[in-house]
Amino acid sequence: MTSFGESHGPVIGVVIDGVPAGWSLDLDLVQAQLDRRRPGQSAFTTARNEEDRVQCWSGCLDGICTGAPLTLTIRNKDARSEDYQELSQTLRPSHADFTTMARYGVRDPRGGGRSSARETAARVMAGAVAVQILAKAGIHCYAWVHSVGQVSMDAEAYALQDSIPYTQEQIESSPLRCPLPDIASAMENEINTARVRGDSVGGTVVGWCQGLPAGLGDPVYDKLDADLAKAMISINAAKFFELGSGWAASSGHASHYNDPILAADTSEWTHIKTATNHAGGVLGGMSTGTPLWFRVGFKPPSTISIDQNSVDHRGQPLVLKARGRHDPCVVPRAVPVVEAMLALVVLDHWLGFPSAKIQRLLP
Amino acid sequence: MTSFGESHGPVIGVVIDGVPAGWSLDLDLVQAQLDRRRPGQSAFTTARNEEDRVQCWSGCLDGICTGAPLTLTIRNKDARSEDYQELSQTLRPSHADFTTMARYGVRDPRGGGRSSARETAARVMAGAVAVQILAKAGIHCYAWVHSVGQVSMDAEAYALQDSIPYTQEQIESSPLRCPLPDIASAMENEINTARVRGDSVGGTVVGWCQGLPAGLGDPVYDKLDADLAKAMISINAAKFFELGSGWAASSGHASHYNDPILAADTSEWTHIKTATNHAGGVLGGMSTGTPLWFRVGFKPPSTISIDQNSVDHRGQPLVLKARGRHDPCVVPRAVPVVEAMLALVVLDHWLGFPSAKIQRLLP
Amino acid sequence: MTSFGESHGPVIGVVIDGVPAGWSLDLDLVQAQLDRRRPGQSAFTTARNEEDRVQCWSGCLDGICTGAPLTLTIRNKDARSEDYQELSQTLRPSHADFTTMARYGVRDPRGGGRSSARETAARVMAGAVAVQILAKAGIHCYAWVHSVGQVSMDAEAYALQDSIPYTQEQIESSPLRCPLPDIASAMENEINTARVRGDSVGGTVVGWCQGLPAGLGDPVYDKLDADLAKAMISINAAKFFELGSGWAASSGHASHYNDPILAADTSEWTHIKTATNHAGGVLGGMSTGTPLWFRVGFKPPSTISIDQNSVDHRGQPLVLKARGRHDPCVVPRAVPVVEAMLALVVLDHWLGFPSAKIQRLLP
Amino acid sequence: MTSFGESHGPVIGVVIDGVPAGWSLDLDLVQAQLDRRRPGQSAFTTARNEEDRVQCWSGCLDGICTGAPLTLTIRNKDARSEDYQELSQTLRPSHADFTTMARYGVRDPRGGGRSSARETAARVMAGAVAVQILAKAGIHCYAWVHSVGQVSMDAEAYALQDSIPYTQEQIESSPLRCPLPDIASAMENEINTARVRGDSVGGTVVGWCQGLPAGLGDPVYDKLDADLAKAMISINAAKFFELGSGWAASSGHASHYNDPILAADTSEWTHIKTATNHAGGVLGGMSTGTPLWFRVGFKPPSTISIDQNSVDHRGQPLVLKARGRHDPCVVPRAVPVVEAMLALVVLDHWLGFPSAKIQRLLP
Repeated sequence: MTSFGESHGPVIGVVIDGVPAGWSLDLDLVQAQLDRRRPGQSAFTTARNEEDRVQCWSGCLDGICTGAPLTLTIRNKDARSEDYQELSQTLRPSHADFTTMARYGVRDPRGGGRSSARETAARVMAGAVAVQILAKAGIHCYAWVHSVGQVSMDAEAYALQDSIPYTQEQIESSPLRCPLPDIASAMENEINTARVRGDSVGGTVVGWCQGLPAGLGDPVYDKLDADLAKAMISINAAKFFELGSGWAASSGHASHYNDPILAADTSEWTHIKTATNHAGGVLGGMSTGTPLWFRVGFKPPSTISIDQNSVDHRGQPLVLKARGRHDPCVVPRAVPVVEAMLALVVLDHWLGFPSAKIQRLLP
Repeated sequence: MTSFGESHGPVIGVVIDGVPAGWSLDLDLVQAQLDRRRPGQSAFTTARNEEDRVQCWSGCLDGICTGAPLTLTIRNKDARSEDYQELSQTLRPSHADFTTMARYGVRDPRGGGRSSARETAARVMAGAVAVQILAKAGIHCYAWVHSVGQVSMDAEAYALQDSIPYTQEQIESSPLRCPLPDIASAMENEINTARVRGDSVGGTVVGWCQGLPAGLGDPVYDKLDADLAKAMISINAAKFFELGSGWAASSGHASHYNDPILAADTSEWTHIKTATNHAGGVLGGMSTGTPLWFRVGFKPPSTISIDQNSVDHRGQPLVLKARGRHDPCVVPRAVPVVEAMLALVVLDHWLGFPSAKIQRLLP
Repeated sequence: MTSFGESHGPVIGVVIDGVPAGWSLDLDLVQAQLDRRRPGQSAFTTARNEEDRVQCWSGCLDGICTGAPLTLTIRNKDARSEDYQELSQTLRPSHADFTTMARYGVRDPRGGGRSSARETAARVMAGAVAVQILAKAGIHCYAWVHSVGQVSMDAEAYALQDSIPYTQEQIESSPLRCPLPDIASAMENEINTARVRGDSVGGTVVGWCQGLPAGLGDPVYDKLDADLAKAMISINAAKFFELGSGWAASSGHASHYNDPILAADTSEWTHIKTATNHAGGVLGGMSTGTPLWFRVGFKPPSTISIDQNSVDHRGQPLVLKARGRHDPCVVPRAVPVVEAMLALVVLDHWLGFPSAKIQRLLP
Repeated sequence: MTSFGESHGPVIGVVIDGVPAGWSLDLDLVQAQLDRRRPGQSAFTTARNEEDRVQCWSGCLDGICTGAPLTLTIRNKDARSEDYQELSQTLRPSHADFTTMARYGVRDPRGGGRSSARETAARVMAGAVAVQILAKAGIHCYAWVHSVGQVSMDAEAYALQDSIPYTQEQIESSPLRCPLPDIASAMENEINTARVRGDSVGGTVVGWCQGLPAGLGDPVYDKLDADLAKAMISINAAKFFELGSGWAASSGHASHYNDPILAADTSEWTHIKTATNHAGGVLGGMSTGTPLWFRVGFKPPSTISIDQNSVDHRGQPLVLKARGRHDPCVVPRAVPVVEAMLALVVLDHWLGFPSAKIQRLLP
């Protein structure tokens, strides 16, 4: 996939190469994922209102993919760039403003330009195509909000599940995209408390992949978990990645965090089961056949309405107080982005998995 | 770089393309890094004794690199594969044994084969070359042990430093590679306690890069932090990656974790300073010019002398008690590997940084 | 660069990553190159009439490139797909129809779909950007028609030139894009003779790069000439690639085809000159600093108005006589495509050329 | 594949990633191909005598590939570098000496260093592995000498064959590797005439692939023929590449060079046949299912015993007369290299060919 477009340019788009020819693309499903990422869904997200209608420019004829590169775009309509006018003379703390200047010498001040989280719409479109292909292969990708500020679900519990513990309906039942209603309510409070103060709050998202066969991934450099780490940290505001119970395991003992292997039929190696899944579904860079799960941590959105010390373009000190639209918490909208990146990484490895063709060559 | 070789095959090697022609390679420095990674250094690491003498097979004539691919190898001498003989019929919990079977259908049971942590010697050799090149450019890479089990240094303190807080000598002053003597002693106790029980313990390593100019990295896909995440999670036993104060920030507020920008001379964008460095030296995927720092978490080594439930090659249950050589804690030896991977990622971005040549073209 | 779009879909486009930030993009020059490739320019090319107006979708703000991916597109307007309706049931000899079916199982019958030569418009747009950047560095790319059918310029003469023998005005002085008026007239006759018979005729194009410094290219796999060969053979209908006097040299002797080296100031290696340039400006995969020149051969366009034996989609025999618009000779329109691909390959190597930055590191 | 090693360093080697695990590697076949490339086979090739015994350093346990990178090497024994001593002060016409200096600033004067044709031994080793894998899939790669100097077989005849016209035994029946004995004798005379004069002579090699299914290759950038062109031009001394009857077609008419399609069972698209095969087995970048054939032209070896004008390292003129060992004609030894590169390109595309797995996903 190759994405293009800036926050306030004419379009955000993505070119996807390698979509199977003959595939019947469901653009409604792409639209549905875009709608989940879209701003303006609830009081907990930015009020910017974009229709975000997906358009197909190439690679699909009468609903059937032709094998040629598939190009999907959305238009940018609600570009109130005057909001950003005064910001063009200002460096915002913890934004990419001055690193962009250091890298490029110029920057597009309208909403962060290329560094805007609006670029993730391109990923969601590509991911929605990957999700469709994986679903046909029985592989399903999920994500939900695990924590907001100090309010958190129980991470250890995931290591005890041998299949996805929540339905998509449970996940979507609250605007927080947290499947447990009580926790979701507490998260809402956490966000409201931050918003009232003009502040913002961080959070974490769980990614989960169900139905993955054992053996996906390479043992040294293109490890499945390493590729996931890169994909997740490439999401705007993502600051940590943890596979399975990795965080807890790094301060614990093998006698607790090793996953005992259960008796099994080994005529095929995909049937091995373990009593627990602290590993998060990957060992030695390759999938185990148990659920893949991981957490991604997002920092609190950097744009807040509290006074901050900063400088202008000439380096002169100023006090900054944001007035534009901004999210007090990014994690509910990050859920479809995590899902999309998960699907793209898994599909990439799945397509490269040794095919029946090669195995036929072996004695 | 391309690595090759298995734990108990004849050699472990690496082919490095792109070393500048005319470069005077210091093989002694490569050897010194290998010695830091080498097993058998202290009571806290595995007793396997390898000389690990680096040999150069190509790319260097009379000590000067020719621009041709540089090939470095070490021999595997102490391959007591009989220790592993009985393991070849056994699947070890939380090892890559059955994922390797699922991926390849065959496996080299001698010490983990390609999945052995001995492969990291190849990375250390390549990293030692990268370290030399970066040092000439004034960029220095460090790593040290931050925590072992429940014993930990203070992560928040790093965000308050505007340069490396410890010297290489302080880091190397204990076999733990923790620069604070009291903490190092407590870590030794933590490891000894685990070893006496036949158990193992996890830990974390900090990576730190000093002297990085602002603006390295790409704003969307090949973000500097995303590439670091992939590199770190590709190290054996690494299970989480955290940029700067990412873990803490994901449960906190922007009013605390934003880094205020200080008044500065902006005639060059590399001179911007911030009052704190919770960001860990990267914003929007690009370096800020402040120190780059991150943490990597390692699980406890999976081979322990405590009884574990597992299965044999036929899936029949058995109770496994390891007898081979094994580390009770991997993090001291992981330090040079983290340094090596950090240097390789940074060098890659540094080489791709817009050159003076391109800038001369601009008006 | 990533191209997208089909012959008769809504757009043809290209995403170009790596354009220097701060670059002032001249879209008129891009348009001028598109106009040279555009059909309907003369009696010697297809009558299809497309406006081919370039549009910029991303990467450029107020005429200045931002460093973000640059997306350029043209619309497809004159899509008389009814002309192709009957062809959808037919396999055309020497077209990609049945290889597309074998590869993808479906095909877009409207004008060849993704295999249409209209895709080369994407390359011309990207190439026109590369041409602008190279021109600033003093590197200039040219192409002209060397032969049509049996009418040919003298290839040996090129080996005796130490700079470009023709001006761009001479090249453009005839619709054939052959700089010698007499030869151009004979070529016109050759094409007219073919057209009258309903036939088509092949030809060759010379590519020439002036101002290339010595030492571009890699000595083994990414040789400059090997990359040019791939780029040229990837152009529709291109069937051979010859570097310098390669064809003649392969039936001759070194005593004639070796290029004697002239006395020179070797304080810089870019000053070496040779008495002749049979090598075509590349030795050992690296540029010599003399002009780079090569030839590309194009087969006669496969669509002709003469009866041909073929089959329908069911494999039943039929006699095919084309009625759509088609070129009797493709080489005049191939000239800007050869130029574009030449510029893209040279720019890619030029950007990767060891920078002053690395050289400063050396003693 | 990644190759390493210089002409007169300790080893020449290659690391091959992606060999199927479980594959039983036949090192004798690798050795047999090396023996065909090896110098000193006949009066027509250089007298340098290398044993060229292949050694396996990794990736293979008890003859079975493990899926880990396979490393194969040969040692350089007969390195009479004193022969090259005086050359180190000399730039040889039409060699890579001064382009290497321009690129790297240093060079290894012993036999051309990295630019030596001895590097092709690495390709032959990798190619011999590819040949074995393809043979299991029913795909066979051949090459033979088509012309030496003015003596040539008939290229048009190849377009009329629907399978390989010569056996491997016929090809190997003469040291020239030309399957027609009379032509082979005339080629010997051509070479002897050149040698007696101290001169060298060029030639061409045909590559032929039998058993390729239809549909391999991509329609735009990674065209099968474009990848072949790059691979062939990357061979030392290769100066042109021609697919099928490309050279002749570029001066002819479609009415002759189009390949009429024959009636066929189209239930599978691999069954389409054509009356002729001027296309050389590729249309639109994808294989047609008919034999793939092409020609590669090699210049006369540049090292000759005739006086040549050149310069020394200071740019002062001198007259050069070579005294080292050198081939009067390179094409017989180029035959296994062309075969190897052909096999590597075809295998790469074959492995990427849409697998049954993906096709099962489609309705």
